[in-house]
Amino acid sequence: MTSINYVFSTELTVRDYECDIQGVVNNANYLHYLEHARHEFLISRGISFSALHDEGIDLIVTKVEIDYKYPLRSHDNFVIRINLLREGYVRLVFVQDIFRLPDEKPIVRARVTGVATRNGKPVRPGDLISRMGLE
Amino acid sequence: MTSINYVFSTELTVRDYECDIQGVVNNANYLHYLEHARHEFLISRGISFSALHDEGIDLIVTKVEIDYKYPLRSHDNFVIRINLLREGYVRLVFVQDIFRLPDEKPIVRARVTGVATRNGKPVRPGDLISRMGLE
Amino acid sequence: MTSINYVFSTELTVRDYECDIQGVVNNANYLHYLEHARHEFLISRGISFSALHDEGIDLIVTKVEIDYKYPLRSHDNFVIRINLLREGYVRLVFVQDIFRLPDEKPIVRARVTGVATRNGKPVRPGDLISRMGLE
Amino acid sequence: MTSINYVFSTELTVRDYECDIQGVVNNANYLHYLEHARHEFLISRGISFSALHDEGIDLIVTKVEIDYKYPLRSHDNFVIRINLLREGYVRLVFVQDIFRLPDEKPIVRARVTGVATRNGKPVRPGDLISRMGLE
Repeated sequence: MTSINYVFSTELTVRDYECDIQGVVNNANYLHYLEHARHEFLISRGISFSALHDEGIDLIVTKVEIDYKYPLRSHDNFVIRINLLREGYVRLVFVQDIFRLPDEKPIVRARVTGVATRNGKPVRPGDLISRMGLE
Repeated sequence: MTSINYVFSTELTVRDYECDIQGVVNNANYLHYLEHARHEFLISRGISFSALHDEGIDLIVTKVEIDYKYPLRSHDNFVIRINLLREGYVRLVFVQDIFRLPDEKPIVRARVTGVATRNGKPVRPGDLISRMGLE
Repeated sequence: MTSINYVFSTELTVRDYECDIQGVVNNANYLHYLEHARHEFLISRGISFSALHDEGIDLIVTKVEIDYKYPLRSHDNFVIRINLLREGYVRLVFVQDIFRLPDEKPIVRARVTGVATRNGKPVRPGDLISRMGLE
Repeated sequence: MTSINYVFSTELTVRDYECDIQGVVNNANYLHYLEHARHEFLISRGISFSALHDEGIDLIVTKVEIDYKYPLRSHDNFVIRINLLREGYVRLVFVQDIFRLPDEKPIVRARVTGVATRNGKPVRPGDLISRMGLE
């Protein structure tokens, strides 16, 4: 794990209402955490969904692969770290790892694939890539 | 309770992910159920939020009062029944009761106040009232 | 508003996934925010739900009254402030106000009534009251 | 697609509060739909989580791979179809497809991997397999 160059990280704490009958975070809520971290990352680079939308560009998620390694419980602190890869001409892949804090126990590893679309058709992310610091 | 003239009812079943650590439906989810029932009611009367919005009219909730009488558990069947009152010139009040099925155990009683707004200002609901069958 | 003696406050930021089609926080999510703040308050006083549960005591919400004054939008910062009242022998009332930050615009005022129960029956909150700093 | 032998299917309708700012179902909610369908499937085979838990067995999800093909919108009807595979000695794979109704437009394809655990350790699902009708 030490070789990964994360480009962004953000910390959160589990809220009671995010846990289910088993007392652990419901699987779907990890997608909320991951989405939240991606949006925070984009904002940190000055990229706004609504501004992009006004330019006619939408970023959409086409695939999520998520490995559940260990469950988070209520009030656990955790960090979501992001690495970003380009795949082919049009796909962006967010590698997102969640670790419990402060013991750095691996919780989730996810690979989220997205594309930029203009009028519903995939386009080369071009300028977005440089704004995200990928090149 | 027998004297209430409900104008609409709809049935649902509790899903596992709607329950929390205590094994009962999380309090916030009842607001989802109630909202869902109000929207189903409006649709049943041919009233669409998006069509109203295009006419410049938005329906917004200004107040919710909800009594929790008994908790629902996963896979419980329940019915949401709606009665509708006019209050003053601009307010509509949805009285919404949730009963467990088939034993009709009272679960929740809610009073949801809404107003119609045009450009953010309350307006007399006028024509909406007749469409909802209030007059 | 200046005369209220809040006993606790906690700050949060709206996440994208908490907003609905209208671009504002869905009404049900305010109940999540309010619940989260109450739990944070109890924890700050050294009161744990699970420890109480092991003593045979459960805290349950019996009534929520919530006034929606102005909607929050994604990425808005806000503070939830809590005041606590005793009502009769067994009821605790949390008065909870949400203000947008930094302009202190009032967003929500809520009154959340709870009771302590032992084996499902209401009991005098007694020792809890002093632990919460009410007396 | 025609060659898949689905072993279970269940129908749902999108509720307004499941949609986000873009007017489409939030990505995380598809995991709720998929989980709901798996639980309905297990119940249909007479398998109860709580009864299993009392036997010391827990079913946990270890991996989700989900392809988003086309978004659902509010009030869309859809069907979740399930196929079930055994993988190695301990893994069960739920192949879950969501189609919009009535036009059968593919919405989501997911592959959800689970294991049965006893005291937190993976065990051969054995008897579960036959109860699910896999062998």
